[in-house]
Amino acid sequence: MAVVQTSIASDRDLYPSRTYPEPVKFSRQDPVVYSDPQKAAPLTKAQLAEYEEKGFLFLDDIFGPEELSSLISEMKSMCLDEAIKRRPETITEKGSGEVRSVFSVHQLNKVFAKVAEDPRLVAVAEYILGDSVYIHQSRLNCKPGFKGKEFYWHSDFETWHAEDGMPRMRALSMSITLTPNDHNNGPLLLIPGSHKSFISCVGETPKDHYLSSLKQQEFGIPDKSSVADLIEQGGIETAVGDIGRIILFDCNTLHGSNGNITPYPRSNLFFVYNALSNKVSQPFASDSIRPEFIGARHSIKPIKSVIFN
Amino acid sequence: MAVVQTSIASDRDLYPSRTYPEPVKFSRQDPVVYSDPQKAAPLTKAQLAEYEEKGFLFLDDIFGPEELSSLISEMKSMCLDEAIKRRPETITEKGSGEVRSVFSVHQLNKVFAKVAEDPRLVAVAEYILGDSVYIHQSRLNCKPGFKGKEFYWHSDFETWHAEDGMPRMRALSMSITLTPNDHNNGPLLLIPGSHKSFISCVGETPKDHYLSSLKQQEFGIPDKSSVADLIEQGGIETAVGDIGRIILFDCNTLHGSNGNITPYPRSNLFFVYNALSNKVSQPFASDSIRPEFIGARHSIKPIKSVIFN
Repeated sequence: MAVVQTSIASDRDLYPSRTYPEPVKFSRQDPVVYSDPQKAAPLTKAQLAEYEEKGFLFLDDIFGPEELSSLISEMKSMCLDEAIKRRPETITEKGSGEVRSVFSVHQLNKVFAKVAEDPRLVAVAEYILGDSVYIHQSRLNCKPGFKGKEFYWHSDFETWHAEDGMPRMRALSMSITLTPNDHNNGPLLLIPGSHKSFISCVGETPKDHYLSSLKQQEFGIPDKSSVADLIEQGGIETAVGDIGRIILFDCNTLHGSNGNITPYPRSNLFFVYNALSNKVSQPFASDSIRPEFIGARHSIKPIKSVIFN
Repeated sequence: MAVVQTSIASDRDLYPSRTYPEPVKFSRQDPVVYSDPQKAAPLTKAQLAEYEEKGFLFLDDIFGPEELSSLISEMKSMCLDEAIKRRPETITEKGSGEVRSVFSVHQLNKVFAKVAEDPRLVAVAEYILGDSVYIHQSRLNCKPGFKGKEFYWHSDFETWHAEDGMPRMRALSMSITLTPNDHNNGPLLLIPGSHKSFISCVGETPKDHYLSSLKQQEFGIPDKSSVADLIEQGGIETAVGDIGRIILFDCNTLHGSNGNITPYPRSNLFFVYNALSNKVSQPFASDSIRPEFIGARHSIKPIKSVIFN
């Protein structure tokens, strides 16, 4: 059972993790939506309220059919590209050698670079984060069918804070689905309201943890009791939907997915937008620095702003 | 791609598996419903037609609330019983040592023994199989939440034939659900119509395969291409439903389940009824005999018939 602690943990680290011998639950110390609600917004008031309350929002019909076709064809060729298979940014399946994920796709692929800077997406990220933004991480997930493994519940922010040095909860993810998600092919599961607490995880970060954590995370995972409590309160929402749906979620929303034994792959394009004022510093709970393609550090480049000057 | 072969394979073995260098698809050589359709039946004509066509059927409202309470309380105490934990019939979770499954529960537990012989269940099994029946295997699945592993697509008959020597497709399973099944806690997935084909699997059975296959099956699994074809034709049906639902399925219906990262366990009571005329002989594709608690051989005891004399 996690100890509940609502005060600020220390001057230096608002969200300590991987330091205490047992789980501790902190209240979130940061806003969820940063912009002034009176300001003209790229989302409706209802959408913003839903995002603030649940920690995520589904956006449909952002991309037209032609745009989606182009993204899908780009995804397919990249997932099969032999040169891509050999790159350090690429994670392959053990055994088959098939591409599972490619990191930093906004730098490796012109079409995906353009999507990352698409004003429709950037305006949403900027409004919610109340700042200019940059890409902290991008990823294309190819996830072939039949053997998709489960991914246990986690907060991305916990890892970005502990291992990348992201100071505050002022980042969000957009997952653009490129295959239909139904209940059986391992859709994203999200815990509504979980973004309002920070679960401090137990266990020190091993050196070069990223080498194993991208396949199966073993550190930075919240304890069962805290997860059960959050699900008891908020339930579980399943991101089933058509191709093109964007799953927009706060950096601290707990999410995970079950495996996928169906023949249907589950592919998506994934961008993490971070506020420019929330740039990473030294990792809060790790001695090593993850590679640039997993968390931008030296190559931080603000995206041309749609809202901010 | 499986070779399609519709004729009978050999005089001795109608369903050869684990013998050819590549997958072969055979047509089913046996009926699905054995009794004369003119005879009074414990199921409606529509139910029987559905079972025959899809290879499975969901039965609700067989047990009343009090019966279910008693089954659930028996399940809970058995899953936590320290003496049960140490028995050879019990499979525990690696690490936590929690009980995952207990075999032969119709012999270990009086309440479950009574359910196995309940005339409401026996009448259905006898009618479909057109014969007196006995329990080939019984199992209580405790399946704790959070870490339920996936179970890949398989035909139970393939294993019972290859490893236990069950000659024909004249057996069926009843899974009595003792926890609610929703889309997220790893419900049973079934492929409608898959029972009409027999997929001959590739790979010889290793010695004492059962020791590992109960945790993760590696032999006797159908090839991806055949599974994809069957799903293309029949789709996937998900056994979501309330406590007490009985999932009745033919011995050759392909089924599997994704993992379960939710806190919700997925428990059920599982009985395999085999026709008395279909008793096991020597395994068709294995040098070793599985233990009695996994497949009845010496202790075969017909259940007192409801329909047959």
